[in-house]
Amino acid sequence: MNQKGLLLVVSGPSGCGKGTVLSRVFAKQPNTYYSVSATTRPPRPGEENGVQYYFLTREAFEERIASGQMLEYAQYAGNYYGTPAQAVDAQLAQGKNVVLEIEVQGAKQVKLRRPDAVMVFIMPPSMKELRHRLQERGTEAQEVIQRRMDTARLEMPQAKDYDYIVFNDTVEEAAEDICAILRAGRCLAQKNLARLDRAIQEA
Amino acid sequence: MNQKGLLLVVSGPSGCGKGTVLSRVFAKQPNTYYSVSATTRPPRPGEENGVQYYFLTREAFEERIASGQMLEYAQYAGNYYGTPAQAVDAQLAQGKNVVLEIEVQGAKQVKLRRPDAVMVFIMPPSMKELRHRLQERGTEAQEVIQRRMDTARLEMPQAKDYDYIVFNDTVEEAAEDICAILRAGRCLAQKNLARLDRAIQEA
Repeated sequence: MNQKGLLLVVSGPSGCGKGTVLSRVFAKQPNTYYSVSATTRPPRPGEENGVQYYFLTREAFEERIASGQMLEYAQYAGNYYGTPAQAVDAQLAQGKNVVLEIEVQGAKQVKLRRPDAVMVFIMPPSMKELRHRLQERGTEAQEVIQRRMDTARLEMPQAKDYDYIVFNDTVEEAAEDICAILRAGRCLAQKNLARLDRAIQEA
Repeated sequence: MNQKGLLLVVSGPSGCGKGTVLSRVFAKQPNTYYSVSATTRPPRPGEENGVQYYFLTREAFEERIASGQMLEYAQYAGNYYGTPAQAVDAQLAQGKNVVLEIEVQGAKQVKLRRPDAVMVFIMPPSMKELRHRLQERGTEAQEVIQRRMDTARLEMPQAKDYDYIVFNDTVEEAAEDICAILRAGRCLAQKNLARLDRAIQEA
């Protein structure tokens, strides 16, 4: 069919369960891959280039920004983090779906550069449940939890700018929702114009 | 959750397999119903009001057109056929999905009156296969088949104006596509703004 894969951008507040839901999606959905980010922070013991991250020098990273080869990027704690366009585009061209898990600002950058990206915002079932989940991790100071709750409050209204909002009431149902969004995404008219034209030519 | 159901409009050339695909969808998908059309033609033996059609007098039908109570309508062979808004809206309000199987002109009328309708065009796998299927029915004169092929040629380019194009390569896969479109449709951001707002209020 030679149909290009779907670029799926997934955001959601810390503690909403994005990671768990996406793991279920990858288990259920063939032909769907996680995008590997690039960073300028040094690799930690056991980390491999191209697995956890593409590890780039600061110069290499800035060169890629300048030449438009980053779909999105940001700086945290003095290091760059971003999504290299090349790896994503290569997978899409092979007909694979690519999932980017990124925060709201990065998601906006991607949408500007790839208007056909499908945007999903994952919501916790409730704020009470979000706080509960953040507390359950057990490793975070109360102050960190409070900061994450504050960030969630700032991010959530921006869910309106996404194509889809998935409430993570249960992991299984939320994963099914995202699988449906992927499957429906491949039926979008704009993704089937080439085959439609071939059928019309034949007519 | 009190979420309104999804209005799904399905078109496709005669012989593309719409009916068979939709039967599979109804079998797989709970909470999804077929819209019953209204007509001014008299009931045939065994037909019941509200089952095959709502049977209306010409006066009653025209009154509903005039008062905007028809989502779409057309005349064939001197009779009106159309979709009464009231029955559709009542099901949607109860959270049920409603499927309208209508031709391209009617679909356009519905989209104007219900901009949140999700539009699906079902395509035959190929024109050769379409002709084959029309011939296989065995009951149609060659002239009728030719007329249907001509109509298909006129309709197919309009698939571009639909949200989704589903190729009926196999009934099972096409039905799965439509089930995914229904499920994804209920995750559309615009359908979840009320719940999002409640979550933000709570925050």
